[in-house]
Amino acid sequence: LVSVLSSAIIVYRLPWTWKCSKLLMKFIHAGLNTIAMILAIVSMVAVFEYHNARNIPNMYSLHSWIGLAAVIFYSLQLFLGFAVFLLPFAPVPLRAALMPIHVYSGLTIFATVIATALMGITEKLIFSLKNPAYSASPPEATFVNCLGLLLVIFGALILWMASRAHWKRPPEENAKVLRPIGGTPEGTEAESTMTDGSNADKSDLRINSEAARKQNLKLDEAGQRSTM
Amino acid sequence: LVSVLSSAIIVYRLPWTWKCSKLLMKFIHAGLNTIAMILAIVSMVAVFEYHNARNIPNMYSLHSWIGLAAVIFYSLQLFLGFAVFLLPFAPVPLRAALMPIHVYSGLTIFATVIATALMGITEKLIFSLKNPAYSASPPEATFVNCLGLLLVIFGALILWMASRAHWKRPPEENAKVLRPIGGTPEGTEAESTMTDGSNADKSDLRINSEAARKQNLKLDEAGQRSTM
Repeated sequence: LVSVLSSAIIVYRLPWTWKCSKLLMKFIHAGLNTIAMILAIVSMVAVFEYHNARNIPNMYSLHSWIGLAAVIFYSLQLFLGFAVFLLPFAPVPLRAALMPIHVYSGLTIFATVIATALMGITEKLIFSLKNPAYSASPPEATFVNCLGLLLVIFGALILWMASRAHWKRPPEENAKVLRPIGGTPEGTEAESTMTDGSNADKSDLRINSEAARKQNLKLDEAGQRSTM
Repeated sequence: LVSVLSSAIIVYRLPWTWKCSKLLMKFIHAGLNTIAMILAIVSMVAVFEYHNARNIPNMYSLHSWIGLAAVIFYSLQLFLGFAVFLLPFAPVPLRAALMPIHVYSGLTIFATVIATALMGITEKLIFSLKNPAYSASPPEATFVNCLGLLLVIFGALILWMASRAHWKRPPEENAKVLRPIGGTPEGTEAESTMTDGSNADKSDLRINSEAARKQNLKLDEAGQRSTM
């Protein structure tokens, strides 16, 4: 679940995907998030059935409360993201206004999922390790603690990648060509807030070369507010 | 601890502090972080003494591992922040290069501290609630679960405030006056990366008026990379 979520987050950050069209990238992002949602629902059903089979109460722990809150916000995020960014009906200003919120809540949900996993690991170690107990540090405890530590490091790396401006997908070439004659909603919302970064006079300088790519990266940083 | 940490994070984001000098703000930020560090050390000593008095093993749980890692990284963060940003020896390019790392690691340590607190709450509820047990959802369990949920909401709000460009402290007026005649390290590192946002030609337009303040905010977003 965490790895699919992470893939969905960093899919825009991989330089080898910058050649793909923005629509394809959106489909991959939405598809990975849908897979993660399905995995979350399957695991929740499994937990409830396990609890019921063993007569363990449901939803009493902080782990379950925060986990359920994360799943509720995640489904809201998925629904809104689908309605606003994937379907072609939302106007560009609405997309531009919602993009920072979409990115912030996506990353916050990701961090909350990791915190929930850490609480779940803690619970499981306490409940399952009885002889020797968790406090006696058997090899399983040390091993799972290492996994938990790696989960934190992994989450921190993903958040680093997601918040770096120079790993951000550069704006699409065809969006620049389309903009003077109207533009389509697809592919423009990331750039719609770039104009307040005082770079409107630069659009005529862009040519399809390595120098232009670097220029785009710089301009893109000015529009970073729209995605971070 | 979490509230002092949060204050240290958002101290630059409070509009009523924008009138204070940048050096004063740095002292407040460093002072609050030093208080948080002292609190962290005091609480760690308390935990070890409590464990030793009750013959509970130390450092066996994932909570303790991640908590200790957070404290180690936090002391490193404090030491580097003090050496690079508070003492007047570090050159401006070094400050500009380290600022995004400083901000990222500060926010990541903050999120890790919240995750550690959640794991600690989970452990404490499991170990302390025995009759009725945590799984029977006594009022204490529900109450502390609510506190944990509020902690997550609080952390999410702080991260929202810290990552919004329009809540960022605008660049100082005297820094602009000083820049043409050399500038001082104090007050310039936040602006040193603004020039790659293609707004170097704007510096002569800045006047001390409300319109200029708005302009500064926009320019500031272009330099956001230096602090987010």
